Amino acid sequence: MVKIAVDMMGGDDAPEIVLEAVEKAVQDFEDLEIMLFGDESQCHIKHPRVSIHHTTEKITMEDEPVRAIKRKKDSSMVRMAEAVKNGEAGGCVSAGNTGALMSAGLFIVGRLKGVSRPALVVTLPTVSGKGVVFLDVGANADAKAEHLYQNALLGHIYAVNLRGIQNPKVALLNIGTEDQKGNSLTKKAFELMNQSQTFNFVGNIEAKSIMEDEADVIVTDGFTGNMILKNLEGIAKSVGKIVKKDLLSSFKNKLAALILKKDLQSIAKQLDYSEYGGSVLLGLDGIVVKAHGSSNAKAFYSAIKQAKIAVETQIVENMREKVGTLNE
Amino acid sequence: MVKIAVDMMGGDDAPEIVLEAVEKAVQDFEDLEIMLFGDESQCHIKHPRVSIHHTTEKITMEDEPVRAIKRKKDSSMVRMAEAVKNGEAGGCVSAGNTGALMSAGLFIVGRLKGVSRPALVVTLPTVSGKGVVFLDVGANADAKAEHLYQNALLGHIYAVNLRGIQNPKVALLNIGTEDQKGNSLTKKAFELMNQSQTFNFVGNIEAKSIMEDEADVIVTDGFTGNMILKNLEGIAKSVGKIVKKDLLSSFKNKLAALILKKDLQSIAKQLDYSEYGGSVLLGLDGIVVKAHGSSNAKAFYSAIKQAKIAVETQIVENMREKVGTLNE
Repeated sequence: MVKIAVDMMGGDDAPEIVLEAVEKAVQDFEDLEIMLFGDESQCHIKHPRVSIHHTTEKITMEDEPVRAIKRKKDSSMVRMAEAVKNGEAGGCVSAGNTGALMSAGLFIVGRLKGVSRPALVVTLPTVSGKGVVFLDVGANADAKAEHLYQNALLGHIYAVNLRGIQNPKVALLNIGTEDQKGNSLTKKAFELMNQSQTFNFVGNIEAKSIMEDEADVIVTDGFTGNMILKNLEGIAKSVGKIVKKDLLSSFKNKLAALILKKDLQSIAKQLDYSEYGGSVLLGLDGIVVKAHGSSNAKAFYSAIKQAKIAVETQIVENMREKVGTLNE
Repeated sequence: MVKIAVDMMGGDDAPEIVLEAVEKAVQDFEDLEIMLFGDESQCHIKHPRVSIHHTTEKITMEDEPVRAIKRKKDSSMVRMAEAVKNGEAGGCVSAGNTGALMSAGLFIVGRLKGVSRPALVVTLPTVSGKGVVFLDVGANADAKAEHLYQNALLGHIYAVNLRGIQNPKVALLNIGTEDQKGNSLTKKAFELMNQSQTFNFVGNIEAKSIMEDEADVIVTDGFTGNMILKNLEGIAKSVGKIVKKDLLSSFKNKLAALILKKDLQSIAKQLDYSEYGGSVLLGLDGIVVKAHGSSNAKAFYSAIKQAKIAVETQIVENMREKVGTLNE
């Protein structure tokens, strides 16, 4: 039996989409137990494997992360993280305030010994449909070369455990593919990674090749990773607007677009990284999954499933073993 | 009369596309003189306003930039840059090795007094079609906050002079829109820019809003800027592959796509930043324009036109005046 703690109150469409996702998840997985944290008056679920834990406070998107975690002790997010800390749950999922969830991970769940900075990991879409593990997308905006090295190791373990890739190709995101390219940070990180015996470092990769299936894991700092992620989001949105404005202005085109509609939607879906589940905060002493703030029930369900697999494949134990041997 | 020096030998399809662009440019602009540098045996142009200056060496894409500029004294790129330095030409254009051209700008044309690091600027496409000035896209990969401040000032002058925007909105690319967001670099740069009396600083902008017409100038460091630029390039290519693979697999779709073809091409063109001309190396004591390596004649022609406008609008003189007052 795998037990996952869920924040019922986080995200744009909570608690509705959370409850819908939880109902489907306990129905699909007979070995799954859910601990729901939130306002019990809003929870209609009655299921032997779903327990409801009433909370009185809510962390909003406007809350300052660290302060919210320290002060709102009876919020759904804090209580959910405590369930992981106490060992009552193997992992947790929230679609709430990202910064607050990272703080809850750091201050409540706690870092793994040997991990100096946790990293936020997502799976980005690729041309083949296979996807690529990409980290850090925003946990650590002022990274040092040692942090990038650690991200590489965490990404390697994530790819092996959660995505079932044997000997994943780990690449460093950089401004050129040649060994000597980069800024002072990536040059130093390249040196460190190039000496690694633990993972299969394949060298630098450029931002234009992220979706080209050249690597299984792409490592960067939290500032750059966040930029790339938001750039992907933004391009999709902006191109959508241009298409609407220019392409669909004539009747003939509207007709043609109608024929293509379903396939265009399937492509848009392929480019939507939330389809691959949530982002996972790696390097903590427990599983913390962040579902996208605008998640629908399906995306939140994927995030629960992801947390479940992470618990089952013992990713935390794997990281503890491999990272614990690094110097702090 | 405006005199522009042109590197005949740089770029994937040189000298053919260069010569075609030069012929069209002198035909279209009666006040334009071109100094062509390259192998005279390959030059067929006979025109009263085109002079050919024979060179015997060529800088390739594989050459190490600084070494190439220091050693290949009779290369088309070095000789072209010298023409600007000596005041024979008002500006220069090359589609050759970007790093070498930056070195030629730095070591031959020279920095403006008060500019600590030159910046490479491009105009990125936006939803409205207006475009946004974006810098630095790779001249300075290890920027300090003072360099970002200077980029803002250079970008402001570029937008006013070359794009004719009065009081352009200058934004800082960051991982959040709130004033306090960012890494240590952007936080400090925000403080500096926020105090500026010289340009209209509108605060932080996220990577997802680059194409949304929220600013006229977006400032970042050369590492991040290069990432964003290459990410844009890469997404266009990767999405193209996905469309080909998934969309065009059925006959019905092929038919619909045929109807949309011209409009789809026009959208692809809108997303292609090389349509807006080349990238310009700002902060030098002369105009240096980099045309994309894979430029066709039309793109190279745009780059020549851009250099011409830059000379006419006295952008270097403007920068000298405004930047000269900054502390070195």
